[in-house]
Amino acid sequence: MKIHKNPSKEQWQTLAKRPELNALDLTSLVATVFTDVQNKGDDSLKKYTLEFDKVHLENLLANEEEIQNAGNVLSDELKKAIQTAKNNIEIFHSSQKEIKNPIETTEGVICWRENRGIEKVGIYIPGGSAPLFSTVLMLGIPAQLADCKEIILCSPPDKNGNLHPAILYTAHLVGITSIYKVGGIQAIAAMSIGTESIPKVDKIFGPGNQYVTAAKKQAQNIGIAIDMPAGPSEVLVIADKNANSTYIAADLLSQAEHGKDSQVILLSTNYEIIEKVLIDITIQTEKLPRSEIIVIALENSKAILMNTLDECIEFSNLYAPEHLILAIDNPEKYTDKIQHAGSVFLGKYSCESAGDYASGTNHTLPTNGFAKNYSGVSLDSFVKKITFQHISENGIQNLGKTIEIMAEAEELLAHKNAVTIRIQSLENKK
Amino acid sequence: MKIHKNPSKEQWQTLAKRPELNALDLTSLVATVFTDVQNKGDDSLKKYTLEFDKVHLENLLANEEEIQNAGNVLSDELKKAIQTAKNNIEIFHSSQKEIKNPIETTEGVICWRENRGIEKVGIYIPGGSAPLFSTVLMLGIPAQLADCKEIILCSPPDKNGNLHPAILYTAHLVGITSIYKVGGIQAIAAMSIGTESIPKVDKIFGPGNQYVTAAKKQAQNIGIAIDMPAGPSEVLVIADKNANSTYIAADLLSQAEHGKDSQVILLSTNYEIIEKVLIDITIQTEKLPRSEIIVIALENSKAILMNTLDECIEFSNLYAPEHLILAIDNPEKYTDKIQHAGSVFLGKYSCESAGDYASGTNHTLPTNGFAKNYSGVSLDSFVKKITFQHISENGIQNLGKTIEIMAEAEELLAHKNAVTIRIQSLENKK
Repeated sequence: MKIHKNPSKEQWQTLAKRPELNALDLTSLVATVFTDVQNKGDDSLKKYTLEFDKVHLENLLANEEEIQNAGNVLSDELKKAIQTAKNNIEIFHSSQKEIKNPIETTEGVICWRENRGIEKVGIYIPGGSAPLFSTVLMLGIPAQLADCKEIILCSPPDKNGNLHPAILYTAHLVGITSIYKVGGIQAIAAMSIGTESIPKVDKIFGPGNQYVTAAKKQAQNIGIAIDMPAGPSEVLVIADKNANSTYIAADLLSQAEHGKDSQVILLSTNYEIIEKVLIDITIQTEKLPRSEIIVIALENSKAILMNTLDECIEFSNLYAPEHLILAIDNPEKYTDKIQHAGSVFLGKYSCESAGDYASGTNHTLPTNGFAKNYSGVSLDSFVKKITFQHISENGIQNLGKTIEIMAEAEELLAHKNAVTIRIQSLENKK
Repeated sequence: MKIHKNPSKEQWQTLAKRPELNALDLTSLVATVFTDVQNKGDDSLKKYTLEFDKVHLENLLANEEEIQNAGNVLSDELKKAIQTAKNNIEIFHSSQKEIKNPIETTEGVICWRENRGIEKVGIYIPGGSAPLFSTVLMLGIPAQLADCKEIILCSPPDKNGNLHPAILYTAHLVGITSIYKVGGIQAIAAMSIGTESIPKVDKIFGPGNQYVTAAKKQAQNIGIAIDMPAGPSEVLVIADKNANSTYIAADLLSQAEHGKDSQVILLSTNYEIIEKVLIDITIQTEKLPRSEIIVIALENSKAILMNTLDECIEFSNLYAPEHLILAIDNPEKYTDKIQHAGSVFLGKYSCESAGDYASGTNHTLPTNGFAKNYSGVSLDSFVKKITFQHISENGIQNLGKTIEIMAEAEELLAHKNAVTIRIQSLENKK
């Protein structure tokens, strides 16, 4: 972790830059897989699963028995923890439900919005050694609350053709309709196009590697909505002189362990704190199983001494972090100044892992500076907001002239006529 | 307009299909313009403006004098109408403001959301003979209400290098920061990349032709958010036996006059109404200046006799219209069944042109079936919703165990450690 002392504002731009990624050009591979899935459906999914996941599957769909068994292998302790997290995520996401609120904009003209769940949503859960069942909660729960009719999940099988029981158990717990053992580009292609066993969905959610990300871009280009653009995970911590360096080191490390391309940034007005945090990082890293990943991630990372807390916030707004931790006294004094961030953690006990798992907020957040353009996933991500209006006889008479004049100025005379005809017939009635 | 009588459900899929568009492959043109704008900035914008809009511009920015003069040329009647529409749009979009709502998910764990306006937004307004100042209202007003810091507008100049005064006047009225005389692919490229005079924005809004649409896709691929995918405008009207055929004909025509690729669909449970509407369409079309466009649009259009109103709604959900008019008795009895639509108009006086101009709802809506995946533009489109959390000593003690167990099961031990360290130090304090 490199230390930068009181950089000039000219240097901020460079310091706020993300490390360049060696992005593979996957355009042609993605196009090939999509075409294959389009033409050969399930057969091509099985072919790619054999090729990439090294397993031949007769059935892509996880069956009842597998799902039932999953619960039996998990410890009661883990099942209870998942239930507690589920409750909190449900409570917070339920609070995002919009209540119908009819507004009379002009006498006789009433407008409102109603929310409808997106009918078919697809959730992608990456494979790997550890089962990301927390992401199943974060995407499955709001989908369920939004009343999405069909919630499917795709995740790559292991070499024995199985999904991890924690994924199966959690998916079943949150009401996911169907679980498919398919991963990578072929999973995204299947959900974008539809095959004999996997339905085409309206929107695709979930994290993934470069292949999945490239496939989601292609999905978007052919008209399927996606949650947000992807990028490596990141945290920015702002610490004042009273901050606890041990806690901060732990928070930075919990971000760094995500992957070699993770980035952590520490801003402080106090040089001693920076020094202490770096020492604590060294001490803590030794004991962590993923220390190899952490060491590489920390090479991309920076500790920056700033003149004031206001400067820290200003830099943070420039960087637009996915996660922002305010490890400072009276953090609520600074929240109004935060313009760009995915999720913000206030005070010394609000660690990022709380939000990652169980406090109730969503952990699917905009990274890579996308906090400037996008919100994290919420209940909103799973609904469409439809506007409604009811205009009475009185209403069209009050508003008619305005519409007629505007339509005429835009040279859309049929638009005008739709009003004129109504007003004239109302006048004839009198 | 072709009539289909009681089609079987097998035929619905075909009937609900949009007409195929002859899409140009603009990928290479778009790439060229983006590279040019990247390398040569304003100079390339001026070059393309000369090439496509046939005018050489010294300054791309509309100046104070032009903006001031615009108000002098418009009639007081039009200015008053614009003001009335502005008021209604403001009232309805203001009602979409979210109130901060802190939720205690677990004792000592408080989560909430705060909205922040997207800092820099770009609005594109197409050129052409008629000035689409209503779209300036629809995009400028929510941008202003959302507290976006920089709201810029691009629109192609006419042959004399001017923008229409109605666009200049409306843009100024709704507080747009800067107005640029540039259109087409080059305008979208400028807002995506930034030039000497035009700032790079975080999100681009607004309608456009195939060139603008292709450029917005490219903007999205390089990380700029866009409002939604584009497509030709459309309306679906459901009429029962008591519907007023003259009104319905006028509504269908007001959609058909948008462009040759517009589509209008009439569903009714009553054959007589269909016949009457078709006659009224013929009568009304004759008097309309855009009849040539209308006649072509009607060729893509269908009138379908259905067995029941429930079937009409079911078909409408399959089609997912941008605009849906329920010209039926007691329309509110059917609103719950509507799953996919951009904006819904209830009853005989709620004509689409009301929503297009002045009732208060937004007219930037998902077309081409995208009402299945996307909402129309609203205040939400201009904000990011940032989650916040504050966890107290008590809170982390209540939630800690849950986080530790879940992090361990995901093999993310640094995530676990961030909690363990805090809990241990709290226990040591006791």
